[in-house]
Amino acid sequence: MIRAVSTDPVPIAQALIRCPSVTPADEGALDVVQRLLEPLGFDCTRLVFGPEDYRVDNLFARRGGEGPHVCYCGHTDVVPPGNLAAWTDDPFAGVVRDGVLYGRGACDMKGGIAAFVAGLADYLAVHPGHRGSISLLITGDEEARSVDGTARVLEWMAANGHIPDMALVGEPTSRSTLGDTIKIGRRGSLNAHITVTGVQGHSAYPAKADNPIHRLVAALGPLLAAPLDNGSDFFPPTTLQVTGFDVGNTATNVIPAVAKAMLNIRFNNHHTSAALTERLHAALRAAGCSYDLVAECSGESFLTRPGPFVDALSRAIERSTGVVPALDTGGGTSDARFIARYCPVAEFGAVGATLHQVNESAPVDELRRLAGTYREVLAELLG
Amino acid sequence: MIRAVSTDPVPIAQALIRCPSVTPADEGALDVVQRLLEPLGFDCTRLVFGPEDYRVDNLFARRGGEGPHVCYCGHTDVVPPGNLAAWTDDPFAGVVRDGVLYGRGACDMKGGIAAFVAGLADYLAVHPGHRGSISLLITGDEEARSVDGTARVLEWMAANGHIPDMALVGEPTSRSTLGDTIKIGRRGSLNAHITVTGVQGHSAYPAKADNPIHRLVAALGPLLAAPLDNGSDFFPPTTLQVTGFDVGNTATNVIPAVAKAMLNIRFNNHHTSAALTERLHAALRAAGCSYDLVAECSGESFLTRPGPFVDALSRAIERSTGVVPALDTGGGTSDARFIARYCPVAEFGAVGATLHQVNESAPVDELRRLAGTYREVLAELLG
Ligand SMILES: [Zn+2]
Ligand SMILES: [Zn+2]
Repeated sequence: MIRAVSTDPVPIAQALIRCPSVTPADEGALDVVQRLLEPLGFDCTRLVFGPEDYRVDNLFARRGGEGPHVCYCGHTDVVPPGNLAAWTDDPFAGVVRDGVLYGRGACDMKGGIAAFVAGLADYLAVHPGHRGSISLLITGDEEARSVDGTARVLEWMAANGHIPDMALVGEPTSRSTLGDTIKIGRRGSLNAHITVTGVQGHSAYPAKADNPIHRLVAALGPLLAAPLDNGSDFFPPTTLQVTGFDVGNTATNVIPAVAKAMLNIRFNNHHTSAALTERLHAALRAAGCSYDLVAECSGESFLTRPGPFVDALSRAIERSTGVVPALDTGGGTSDARFIARYCPVAEFGAVGATLHQVNESAPVDELRRLAGTYREVLAELLG
Repeated sequence: MIRAVSTDPVPIAQALIRCPSVTPADEGALDVVQRLLEPLGFDCTRLVFGPEDYRVDNLFARRGGEGPHVCYCGHTDVVPPGNLAAWTDDPFAGVVRDGVLYGRGACDMKGGIAAFVAGLADYLAVHPGHRGSISLLITGDEEARSVDGTARVLEWMAANGHIPDMALVGEPTSRSTLGDTIKIGRRGSLNAHITVTGVQGHSAYPAKADNPIHRLVAALGPLLAAPLDNGSDFFPPTTLQVTGFDVGNTATNVIPAVAKAMLNIRFNNHHTSAALTERLHAALRAAGCSYDLVAECSGESFLTRPGPFVDALSRAIERSTGVVPALDTGGGTSDARFIARYCPVAEFGAVGATLHQVNESAPVDELRRLAGTYREVLAELLG
């Protein structure tokens, strides 16, 4: 049987929710975290990045010495509340009613940060001389641009000897029951904008023209005819969707000069954005296209294969919740894509049912059980 | 040696040019023709068709009795003069300078009608008791809508026992030298507008959507991969050109609900518009498309195979001009497409070099030689 936590995450979560830190504003949220960590022996560093008109505050905190370095990652910025009239309570009041905490960020992810800090305090009370070190990377730039947050802090960490051995992102990954899902990877996403240039002409005399629609259809056809792969151990098959195809010609007897297409590829660990971009180039070249291709990768795919870190995480979750977590790679991108460049990373947290919604909430009981689980995770990883 | 014509086409052409019959206006042009034909023994019927705001005048004239019926077809309407400042002379003055007649319609095709009437007068002076009958179908609705002209007159002719055994359209078919080209067919033209409806969705979850762009690319690919035919004795290969492909989606991560394409097929005598439309349906069905297809044929293909009529025409042209005419099927549509439904039809006339241009013109000498050629054509066909 697992001991209940003696530190309560609920008032911590309330204090965080009461800071209206709509991305990228901070409004004192990082101070709440820092004031809790300093008494626990953490060295705290504030890292402000970004242009004049988009300043982002971040917190890096670390304690401990030689041995494994575990980093907990999260964000205190939240999405806007949306239609205020649709909220039952002030979204920044942190009201508790009938055992449920309400407020923007309750689930994504001020509640998660509060649970980790509570579990951490409890862990340190019992294991003041733990091996290794514990750090927290808390950013204020996750919900919008994700430019001056986790990615920049990691650069600073690399330059200052703070790259961890493993990282746990506290996003709300559980589907319906706390503990049912760990994310060990995410698909990558690549957008491509293609412009094919031909030679305009009259449809009665196509030999004098070069139809860019025909070339684009010839280039896309083979890309769409067969799947790019059949999936992998932890991923569904890569998908390629053409989301735009436009010409803008209104005369049926005119062969247009230009055709444009737009596509999105969600790719698993069989691919990199560079290899996929080259595949697009090859298809366009094979169709004889005179073209321009702009490819933008909003995140490479990554996978933290099951091993000591994921196994320890799973054991701690099962011991604490009684649920065997599924190892999942679904959903959109998160800051884990930046961390994966440096060390093994997994994501585990609360049930994300009300994430980004009106009346976002987290059951008080779930937050307390999550704190206990994080405490067990630390015990599993650092003894 | 061929006798020179004793009737001069030049003053007839001038009288016609001086009627500013910009389509569909008549401005007395058909009266000019009718007043010349009545003394030659033609029964003339004026046929006015079209809606209140688009009245079109047409003339049908016939003389003769039992035996082969030859019909000469033409139009007295002309395209607008365009930029008046660019004309050296008033486009409706019919000025002759340095042996060239200038004016809108000099070449297309008031000059041609004048040459036929002159050659006809000459022929009848020598052959007052010719066998068979001669008719003229002169319309005022060729250059724009082509709805209430030749097509409607032919319906009237069919209802009144006037369908000829062969028809000669007097459009300016010669390329560089009078007599070098007879048109014995034209390609058909089919426009199709395709709308494919899918199911909108997020590009990260394509299994929940149905991408109409993918279906449309799959339908068009096979249609574009191989030529529809390899041409025929008198025609180049049929061409299919996709002239539009539009979606109107701007979000790279959204699978759109609808994709539209537009295409134009120029087809030879291997095809009918109905068979081609069915081929489009089959391609869309094969790609599993939920679609709407609107197909519009602006003219079926037709071919008057070499035989007694074309041979006689060729002999008369060669004897009169010294040039062996090529049998051609190129260029856009003409009213011959309507006539081909009823009887063999060929097109022969002046050099079309200045057709529809500023300073449209016809050499006086060429008009006189064309009159002689038409006289020889009548002699060849009716003895
Ligand atoms: Zn989040
Ligand atoms: Zn014409």
